[in-house]
Amino acid sequence: MTTSRYAVASAPAKVILFGEHFVVYGVPALVAAIDLRAEALLAEREDGLIYIGAPDLGLAGYFDAEGSFRPEEGGKEAEGALRPIFVAVREIWRALKARPSGVNVEVRSRIPVAAGLGSSAAVAVSAAAAASWLSAGRLEEELIFKAALEAEKLIHITPSGVDPAISTYGGLIAYKKGEGIRRLEIGAHLELVVGDTGLKRSTGALVAAVRALKDRRPGLFSKLLEAAEELVDEALGALKEGNLRALGELMDISHGLLASIGVSNAALERLVHAARRAGALGAKLTGAGGGGCMIALVEPGKGREVAKAIEEAGGRAFLAAVSEEGVRIERAGPSGA
Amino acid sequence: MTTSRYAVASAPAKVILFGEHFVVYGVPALVAAIDLRAEALLAEREDGLIYIGAPDLGLAGYFDAEGSFRPEEGGKEAEGALRPIFVAVREIWRALKARPSGVNVEVRSRIPVAAGLGSSAAVAVSAAAAASWLSAGRLEEELIFKAALEAEKLIHITPSGVDPAISTYGGLIAYKKGEGIRRLEIGAHLELVVGDTGLKRSTGALVAAVRALKDRRPGLFSKLLEAAEELVDEALGALKEGNLRALGELMDISHGLLASIGVSNAALERLVHAARRAGALGAKLTGAGGGGCMIALVEPGKGREVAKAIEEAGGRAFLAAVSEEGVRIERAGPSGA
Repeated sequence: MTTSRYAVASAPAKVILFGEHFVVYGVPALVAAIDLRAEALLAEREDGLIYIGAPDLGLAGYFDAEGSFRPEEGGKEAEGALRPIFVAVREIWRALKARPSGVNVEVRSRIPVAAGLGSSAAVAVSAAAAASWLSAGRLEEELIFKAALEAEKLIHITPSGVDPAISTYGGLIAYKKGEGIRRLEIGAHLELVVGDTGLKRSTGALVAAVRALKDRRPGLFSKLLEAAEELVDEALGALKEGNLRALGELMDISHGLLASIGVSNAALERLVHAARRAGALGAKLTGAGGGGCMIALVEPGKGREVAKAIEEAGGRAFLAAVSEEGVRIERAGPSGA
Repeated sequence: MTTSRYAVASAPAKVILFGEHFVVYGVPALVAAIDLRAEALLAEREDGLIYIGAPDLGLAGYFDAEGSFRPEEGGKEAEGALRPIFVAVREIWRALKARPSGVNVEVRSRIPVAAGLGSSAAVAVSAAAAASWLSAGRLEEELIFKAALEAEKLIHITPSGVDPAISTYGGLIAYKKGEGIRRLEIGAHLELVVGDTGLKRSTGALVAAVRALKDRRPGLFSKLLEAAEELVDEALGALKEGNLRALGELMDISHGLLASIGVSNAALERLVHAARRAGALGAKLTGAGGGGCMIALVEPGKGREVAKAIEEAGGRAFLAAVSEEGVRIERAGPSGA
């Protein structure tokens, strides 16, 4: 093992700054990479097998070249979590026409799982990136994005591509249904605190509940959509100007609109109001809601107090700045080999 | 005292069902009387003085015919609270050209004070009503409303007249700025639970903060106003149909819109979400927000569980149905006199 070639790549998580849920109905979503990263270590092995382990989750197992799976840890559940990583690596090999004999993959992540932060995409992107480095000696970003998108298809039936795009390229993007992804310039350094309620929720059920609301009250829903669209417009302006105070205010308003369509809950409100009271410039739920995570925008250097308030209100808090940097190689070796 | 003539009148509190804050900008507000009542006992006295006591608040004092005040309990603070009651009684005497020699007034109220429930108007209306009964042997509703409106002018510089109208006439009204008050039919028996956060707030400061938001973000605010107006339209329809489920849903949406303009807070969210979890059809803050009260709509007979949940979440809860009945005489005497 110590002499086999290896590469460690990392990729950022994402947060939706504005437009979640309303994005389903044509409002642009603004999505940013944050410096909370997943990491994949790939090391070549000689027996043709692809061994994938996620020690933090207690999951591990072997894929052969045809994709058959044999669990080693975590039983049947392991396959669902590990196969996307296998697909990401295999897609890179296909695209680069590389045929390594085998590989050990170990993934680690500081990103809360199933919390709307794109943890699965960040893991797939880092695995694909390490595979790209081992096979080609460079990061083929376009291929990495596509490989991770294939992996995402195992998890979401029709992924928007937002999560792998953010994890690959970093920075800030606007995504609009039917128009795809547009990269944006950020006019300021944005420091966020992410607060995790620890409550798992079903994105699908929440999206369906919002659709049912829209069907019951089309007139009112269209007014809320108009407000959400105007809000994203104004947020784009504030982002360009780097106007943190305006951005925070718009986050607060956005949270209220999301609450009005029924996707907030008591735990999210607790964290959101705790963050505001502790001096956040603004705070909102992020992602599907109904649990999951919230984000607070803070003045540079002021994250700790807000994080403390979120923890005291029962959440897990992470300081996380918006990150221009996407996927990157952390280290590779053997050095000098 | 036992042989002096007396009358006891009571008048209901009010809740804003829909449209608070947005009413300032032309959206109609829907306001209902609830069967949480204030009571005034008036008993004639011979010395020309008007003695007013509010034993629950520890306030009491004497007014002479010219309106000079001498506190008996509560010191200087007493005058601010008691003078509106004096004005209400004096206005009735003026209108009826009655000159009783003097009167003892004792007011009691189950309505939380300074919580957006129109407690001061309910007290003024009941005092005016008891005065009307003693002087004319009947309830002159139009005069009672006007007398209470005069009293309100000591508290609010330009009162809308909504609070005294609700306390006098009961039922449900729509109020629109510049157009005044319109009585509405209610298609259903509405059972509410009122939850009081116990936090005092300044209505003026909240109204000013919303105006500042409107001035900073006129485009977005106008979209929120449009949504608020559509919401009141749909609520009027649901009220006419007696569609409780739709009304509850619209209350939830309304709460989100109010949160989006910054007038909710952690305590209100706690009570609102506790009520929803306990089975309320809908829940929202009522009135100025930032503390004060929330209301939950419940299925008939289901109020107790929701009230319990609100109390467990730290609020004081009151079961309160929407009441068709306004001011009324409870008893008068001496019987057979």
